[in-house]
Amino acid sequence: ARPKVGYYYTGKSIENALGDILKQNKVSDIKGLPVAVSEETSVYDAIVTLFLEDVGTIFVVDENNYLKGVASRKDFLKITLGDNDLGKMPVGIVMTRWPNIVTLRDEDTALSAAKKVEEFQVDCIPVISDDNVEEQAELTGRVSKTHLVKLLAEIDEQR
Amino acid sequence: ARPKVGYYYTGKSIENALGDILKQNKVSDIKGLPVAVSEETSVYDAIVTLFLEDVGTIFVVDENNYLKGVASRKDFLKITLGDNDLGKMPVGIVMTRWPNIVTLRDEDTALSAAKKVEEFQVDCIPVISDDNVEEQAELTGRVSKTHLVKLLAEIDEQR
Repeated sequence: ARPKVGYYYTGKSIENALGDILKQNKVSDIKGLPVAVSEETSVYDAIVTLFLEDVGTIFVVDENNYLKGVASRKDFLKITLGDNDLGKMPVGIVMTRWPNIVTLRDEDTALSAAKKVEEFQVDCIPVISDDNVEEQAELTGRVSKTHLVKLLAEIDEQR
Repeated sequence: ARPKVGYYYTGKSIENALGDILKQNKVSDIKGLPVAVSEETSVYDAIVTLFLEDVGTIFVVDENNYLKGVASRKDFLKITLGDNDLGKMPVGIVMTRWPNIVTLRDEDTALSAAKKVEEFQVDCIPVISDDNVEEQAELTGRVSKTHLVKLLAEIDEQR
């Protein structure tokens, strides 16, 4: 989605302006489609999916598209160092399991996304639906460092 | 380094303000220390170094600290999919080789760093010295997506 820009400020500090633009852009404006597999998928197939979809993080969902886990390039690289049969090991062993997952919702700001990426040192955060039943969370998107860096570059081009 | 903030603007668009703050911050303000190995280092040892230093990209230098190559988590993950002996394969086989490398210099802006990260789809860019002799480039730092996202979060905290 295109960043929201185009109006004028007067007498505000540039830090305020920057903070505002980061708050006006919501997660729903910058998020991308999530790439997900089932928990039984092999680590090998999950890594192949990473390359084919050209993403750095893969999500694991159940049959209802509820978020079960997250696995990153870093997680996969670590497991490949051992003497493991990647074709037989399920991704469920490698992933960080729900609910130990940092998440975002559509109405969160780009700024809060940036802060979460920095605080929790993750490359990509799953976006979940607003109307979740108790401990279930439907996966609706992803926000990665790439989306945030892209936001910077794109805003400048709107000048 | 702490982002440069603290002065006021009047009557400028917020896009201008954002563009300015991204231009006032130079690569030298945001860069981190590079993590480097020699070309003869094994892929296995290079991956272990990635984890021990907690970085996503490793640089390859010669004995004079001149940049010879770049290898990312993605490059390493790809090579682990094959039936390779990572302990015997040198990192020189995996790396992207100089001069086919995107680079930054200290005086480049944070904005140009963001644009290069986006345009060339890389996670981390090596910073090289200004006074290079012909095709040699001394490695002095790195700018990653993490540094750029951190810049966003930190600027807001200065308000």
